[in-house]
Amino acid sequence: DTIDREFARHILDKCIEKAMEIKVPVVITITDASGNIIVQERMDGALLASIEISRNKAFTSAIFKKPTHELKGPSEPGGELYGIGNMERVVTFGGGYPLRVKGEMFGAIGVSGGTVEEDMIVASHGVKVFKEVFLYGIREK
Amino acid sequence: DTIDREFARHILDKCIEKAMEIKVPVVITITDASGNIIVQERMDGALLASIEISRNKAFTSAIFKKPTHELKGPSEPGGELYGIGNMERVVTFGGGYPLRVKGEMFGAIGVSGGTVEEDMIVASHGVKVFKEVFLYGIREK
Amino acid sequence: DTIDREFARHILDKCIEKAMEIKVPVVITITDASGNIIVQERMDGALLASIEISRNKAFTSAIFKKPTHELKGPSEPGGELYGIGNMERVVTFGGGYPLRVKGEMFGAIGVSGGTVEEDMIVASHGVKVFKEVFLYGIREK
Amino acid sequence: DTIDREFARHILDKCIEKAMEIKVPVVITITDASGNIIVQERMDGALLASIEISRNKAFTSAIFKKPTHELKGPSEPGGELYGIGNMERVVTFGGGYPLRVKGEMFGAIGVSGGTVEEDMIVASHGVKVFKEVFLYGIREK
Repeated sequence: DTIDREFARHILDKCIEKAMEIKVPVVITITDASGNIIVQERMDGALLASIEISRNKAFTSAIFKKPTHELKGPSEPGGELYGIGNMERVVTFGGGYPLRVKGEMFGAIGVSGGTVEEDMIVASHGVKVFKEVFLYGIREK
Repeated sequence: DTIDREFARHILDKCIEKAMEIKVPVVITITDASGNIIVQERMDGALLASIEISRNKAFTSAIFKKPTHELKGPSEPGGELYGIGNMERVVTFGGGYPLRVKGEMFGAIGVSGGTVEEDMIVASHGVKVFKEVFLYGIREK
Repeated sequence: DTIDREFARHILDKCIEKAMEIKVPVVITITDASGNIIVQERMDGALLASIEISRNKAFTSAIFKKPTHELKGPSEPGGELYGIGNMERVVTFGGGYPLRVKGEMFGAIGVSGGTVEEDMIVASHGVKVFKEVFLYGIREK
Repeated sequence: DTIDREFARHILDKCIEKAMEIKVPVVITITDASGNIIVQERMDGALLASIEISRNKAFTSAIFKKPTHELKGPSEPGGELYGIGNMERVVTFGGGYPLRVKGEMFGAIGVSGGTVEEDMIVASHGVKVFKEVFLYGIREK
């Protein structure tokens, strides 16, 4: 199953609000469960590099069914998956999350533009919105 | 100069309305004048191939400052630019347009998902919206 | 929705029988609706080139929701989509088919190794098996 | 020399049984001695990332004539082959094995989807099956 365009857009809009709140211009990408883009948006002033990075973070989370920061330790020297970071389109630092309910994948989100910590704040806000809407529906907009 | 995110989003929303009107699910990409994505959105049911094609149409229009259909004749055997189609990310059929006023580039739009004719209808609607808003501002939303 | 591994394997086995019947060693790939491989198999004596071609035929059919031979005319000089063949992983000759029921995509199949006509015989046999099993279930194996 | 398709399929089927036994959905790839795919299969629920990783593990084992985990130490900072992991399609963690008898290469196997340890359990089971069948033939199926 997958989230539809309106749902993806709602999550993205909420992430932009959060990014404005913490004053960091970012690029946000939301994909389906296979990592195919549904919506991508670059805030004014966001880094050009973040277009590709946010897309790759979402893609990585989709194909590994994992937040990208969970690949950080394993991909470092001495880690179990050292070398995985050379795989095309794979990002091994924070800012990507699966959109998942009870183990079932519905999509993924990737945020890039600030520090990793800031990207994770915005992206995990998107995960929170996804889960709330999934359970209770959209209540405001 | 470049269009900002809100302006890009307004154009994209109008294009989605147009695509719904002619009943063709498409992917729409709007870039800045350098071909860097500002916003991309895939309507439910649109071809997965269109994610890349719409992006490349906008990119091509940005870097050539031309609608993509104007590259069609020149890119064919016997044409002046025969071979240009081998250039990475270049699309030589219709559906991409520059967003330009009096020769000045502000961005580009690319649409993919229907026939070339349908893609051009949706994308050129985006150009029309761009020009109206540029001249008169956003009057409704 | 998507076909599962056992279903994909059943279709592939039937295609191998068909390829043996017409005495052409081929490579067969079956993907999900997004073009991600479920099963791929190379018959003894099949061309090495066919590993990539069969995979790309299935991928192309998935992302365009079309048999690959329907891209042939449009991708040729003078055709509506001339230039599309330069897109990475896109094949514009016969041997790829969507696995689809009533407009809904379940996967795709790609066959390579013989002439285009032979590849199409084997791949379209796979489509026939897919539809029969989808409607009536697996009756023999 | 190389293993044929039926032999490859037999090994793969036994690996799927093993993966089911340890309850980990994986992707399994078996190649010839040159690293060209003979058969690849993705179990239901396996990570999409594993399609490429399992293929690359088999490829790496074929072209280095080594299990992939033996590249781990040498590929790390300070190791003799540090940098080798930047080579396209090379994987430097466990789950890939050559299929080899008395120094002669017949093919390679790559497994991905679980932890590295789980992947190695499934892939080395494939090696064991390969050797048994090579010496004594297929006794059950």
